[in-house]
Amino acid sequence: MSYRAPVEEIGFFLRHCTSLPQAMAEGRSDLSFDLVDSILEEAGRFAAERIAPLDRVGDTVGNRLAEGAVTTAPGWRAAYAAWTGAGWNGVAAGEAFGGQALPCVVTSALTEFWNAASPAFALGPVLTMGAIEALTRHGAPPLQEAFLPHLVSGRWTGTMNLTEPQAGSDLAALRTRAERQADGSYRIFGTKIFISYGEHDLAENIVHLVLARLPDAPAGTRGISLFAVPKILLAGDGTLGARNDVKAIGLEHKLGLHGSPTCTMTFGEAGEGAVGYLVGEENRGLACMFTMMNNARLAVGIQGVAVAERATQRALAFARERRQGRAAGAAPGEMSPIIAHPDVRRMLLTMRAETAAARALCLRTADALDRAERHADPILRAAAHAEASLLTPIAKAFATDAGIKVASLGIQVHGGMGYIEETGAAQHLRDARIFAIYEGTNGIQAIDLVLRKVPLAGGTVAEGLIADCRAAAADVLALNAVEFGQTGARLSEAVDALGRATRAMLDWAAEAPEKALAGATPYLALFARAAGGAALVRTALAAHGALNAGADDPRLMGRVTLARFFAENLAVEAAGLEAAVHGGGAVLEADPALAL
Amino acid sequence: MSYRAPVEEIGFFLRHCTSLPQAMAEGRSDLSFDLVDSILEEAGRFAAERIAPLDRVGDTVGNRLAEGAVTTAPGWRAAYAAWTGAGWNGVAAGEAFGGQALPCVVTSALTEFWNAASPAFALGPVLTMGAIEALTRHGAPPLQEAFLPHLVSGRWTGTMNLTEPQAGSDLAALRTRAERQADGSYRIFGTKIFISYGEHDLAENIVHLVLARLPDAPAGTRGISLFAVPKILLAGDGTLGARNDVKAIGLEHKLGLHGSPTCTMTFGEAGEGAVGYLVGEENRGLACMFTMMNNARLAVGIQGVAVAERATQRALAFARERRQGRAAGAAPGEMSPIIAHPDVRRMLLTMRAETAAARALCLRTADALDRAERHADPILRAAAHAEASLLTPIAKAFATDAGIKVASLGIQVHGGMGYIEETGAAQHLRDARIFAIYEGTNGIQAIDLVLRKVPLAGGTVAEGLIADCRAAAADVLALNAVEFGQTGARLSEAVDALGRATRAMLDWAAEAPEKALAGATPYLALFARAAGGAALVRTALAAHGALNAGADDPRLMGRVTLARFFAENLAVEAAGLEAAVHGGGAVLEADPALAL
Repeated sequence: MSYRAPVEEIGFFLRHCTSLPQAMAEGRSDLSFDLVDSILEEAGRFAAERIAPLDRVGDTVGNRLAEGAVTTAPGWRAAYAAWTGAGWNGVAAGEAFGGQALPCVVTSALTEFWNAASPAFALGPVLTMGAIEALTRHGAPPLQEAFLPHLVSGRWTGTMNLTEPQAGSDLAALRTRAERQADGSYRIFGTKIFISYGEHDLAENIVHLVLARLPDAPAGTRGISLFAVPKILLAGDGTLGARNDVKAIGLEHKLGLHGSPTCTMTFGEAGEGAVGYLVGEENRGLACMFTMMNNARLAVGIQGVAVAERATQRALAFARERRQGRAAGAAPGEMSPIIAHPDVRRMLLTMRAETAAARALCLRTADALDRAERHADPILRAAAHAEASLLTPIAKAFATDAGIKVASLGIQVHGGMGYIEETGAAQHLRDARIFAIYEGTNGIQAIDLVLRKVPLAGGTVAEGLIADCRAAAADVLALNAVEFGQTGARLSEAVDALGRATRAMLDWAAEAPEKALAGATPYLALFARAAGGAALVRTALAAHGALNAGADDPRLMGRVTLARFFAENLAVEAAGLEAAVHGGGAVLEADPALAL
Repeated sequence: MSYRAPVEEIGFFLRHCTSLPQAMAEGRSDLSFDLVDSILEEAGRFAAERIAPLDRVGDTVGNRLAEGAVTTAPGWRAAYAAWTGAGWNGVAAGEAFGGQALPCVVTSALTEFWNAASPAFALGPVLTMGAIEALTRHGAPPLQEAFLPHLVSGRWTGTMNLTEPQAGSDLAALRTRAERQADGSYRIFGTKIFISYGEHDLAENIVHLVLARLPDAPAGTRGISLFAVPKILLAGDGTLGARNDVKAIGLEHKLGLHGSPTCTMTFGEAGEGAVGYLVGEENRGLACMFTMMNNARLAVGIQGVAVAERATQRALAFARERRQGRAAGAAPGEMSPIIAHPDVRRMLLTMRAETAAARALCLRTADALDRAERHADPILRAAAHAEASLLTPIAKAFATDAGIKVASLGIQVHGGMGYIEETGAAQHLRDARIFAIYEGTNGIQAIDLVLRKVPLAGGTVAEGLIADCRAAAADVLALNAVEFGQTGARLSEAVDALGRATRAMLDWAAEAPEKALAGATPYLALFARAAGGAALVRTALAAHGALNAGADDPRLMGRVTLARFFAENLAVEAAGLEAAVHGGGAVLEADPALAL
């Protein structure tokens, strides 16, 4: 099944549901939609033609580790070289080091395309972009000058080295240590696990961003520093010199993402330590890492969207070809394509609606990041920053859960064929399953949302977003168009449920944090149901307006149908989710020895 | 992680929530609970000690096909020999051919244990038991005498040969043909795919039950006949003779269940046809196959329960060991076991509650089958038969969806470790994913429910089951015990929603079947939410009564907590599901070219 990037769909969203047109009009962006469209077209073509064909060999052949060196799957080196050669690695980076500084809404669309073509392939650049972001914001100028041009071009790649066996979600527990050297550099000693692209043969060098503790550091997360540790050290003239003491000693055997090498890394195994350079200030490493992680969280959400899109395209193509049974209205004796059967249509519409809602929330988050970065008004920049902070955990968790759900439905649409690996549907589920775990499990996202993000500014950030959702519901109610069915009523109910649950969360976050924790996951899901539904309604209203203005693209009515389907079938989960937010009693009161 | 069969839990359910005590009291069963307990204990021990250790080698090594012969994974032959040697294969079969004729509620518990230990191993016997059932009910006496003693002992195994490349869910399309022979036997020609245990080295012989068409058969499903086709023919003296012309020509490469050989089978490839014997009447094969499939559907539901139970045990053990972060109340500087974190507890309680509800619905279905078979009163037998017919698609679809959901949550509880294959959590998801597809996809189950089962007897069968659920809700409301929290109110709301949706379904099934089809899947899920919640409430009320009577087993209060958690957090999905039952408008009205 060939992949087709949803260029038109995203172009429509960028035009009607983001601040990009305003930024263009106000001269804050020198982009035009002609240019944006051609970037999306070109990237979509590259993803489909050059990357997608490599996904399966990555899955079946995977990576080999021998004598500390990882060999990627056949064809991957050439594809990576072509991809960086075309300049795709530097689209998000600043212009000072060779990047194109495209807005996040555009680079997010590109991130989706690469990940839809092959999430295992695209994961490497996601990490490199995170490293670029961390060095750009927190690196000292000499470090930036030495590393950033190579990372931006993609000649080098970057990694995030957080996890240790005893320190997964809880970074306070990490033990990797750093020692100060007389020349201002540091020596790093320790072992890190689950390091994506920790070692590979795609690039000349790898910059590991490593969390470690100085000998005199305070305990806990306030004693963690961030270091840049290159695989190969730079000689005095800036060329690649000696090998640093950092090594891959193992590759994980994973459920999916087989094409991505997940390494166990040792630092300083030979005795004198791996040479590292401080990023940011000593003991402030977690803040620097969070710069990287927040962007990575959005990128992981987009991975969920990407695999959902791919799984949906695959299932749709199958459902149009495969004939079984006779649907209502089919001629006697004729088998119908299974897309004609209502239950199959429900699955496919669910896949499309979840994918579109997840994409809309991710792009909405990206748009908030763009406004936080580029808006002329500092007050609006700050407001946009708060908005992005609140939306990030929702986008990450909702979109990755959607990725898993949609990939699983994709298998179901295929029937028995879906269980056969050669069909390709099963790989999407295997690949997507990690997205809900890495870059902070979705449970961690929910906790971040209820304890830190919803209480921001006394709850006003959350309330502002809820007011936006309510306005979308009011607009569709006011339109009173029969094509929208019960969309307005169902979305209003979801938004009301979210409003009530948010007030409960604000009370609990202050006074009974355990209750907030017990209801965190259904609360996040409830937020996504309302905000996702509202985002689809905004898109649908724009499409409806275009239809009324005489446009005749059939995809416009498709957007209305999708928003309606979401509101009537998925946003309606809000009632149960609101109840579950309050259903923590059994969670908290049960004696674990009894109930579990 | 070692498996521990839930012997006490099932024993409690059999005593308090099935008709088994009544059957014992009325002398319809010569079992005692002492005997039942010892059967469960013994089977649980066998499953844990002899089968569970083989599950992983089945997954990693799988099966090899060479020259038409399949070699199973190391250790599997010896385990199967020990298992049949201990008599476990014949527990359900009639006594006439060496079986033990245990009630279905007891054999269902055993089926769960084998499948929890290794679903790939236990799938073979599920199919053999289906073949025994079909031959017992529909086979001519000479065929029964020739085949049944071997199938009951497990020296031979059985298969179901339905699927062909163009005929998956739609059996009307099948093309395998059968030709009458002068001696009363038949010759079979054709190819079947996805045949579980179509070829293997565990048993002396394999009896394939094959659907095929006679040359003069009517088109469609009324022209299908069922044949028994042995791998090895019997010589005149009843001993194994010549090889029949049936052969495995391929093994599928699947997402999971690697230990189970899934074969492509050819019949009559050499030219003269594979020798087969008619089962039942010509052109009535589908009815015979449905005998086999209905039992197999319940067994597949139990596979879902089994993998859910195993995944839950594994996640619980991990959550008790793994320490990350500090939970409320923990000493400063101390890491807490992750089971102490509310969000992890919510996941674990969800796993336990879904598993218990799915088990309860499967055992309730098994109990209806027992009453249908053995009750003294023919009117009650007929009522029980109708009840089992209605419950079977719900038990199959709900329990298999639960298996997938619980296995996926199990990965999530493990965090990054869950994605590593060696941990074992990922295999459960890979294995469970097929349960929602084979023996009739869950979509087919939902269609069966709304078009055939709910309308049974004018809807009175469904209404009777709903009345049972309402009574459970009323009883817990009347008890008014604080430990139950909002259980009664939440369950009542779910039952009311089911009642309304059922009335809509009855109208639609008669007058607007497309609407019934469009709402079928959420309707089935709604039924399971109400009936599953009610079944857990019944168990909890029995436990509460025992506590009030002075019992002090802590597991009793655990049952109350679990019912409460289900009602307050999962049964509350009923509102959204009811809305989705009515949300088919977008499904039916959308022009596929636009919306999809």
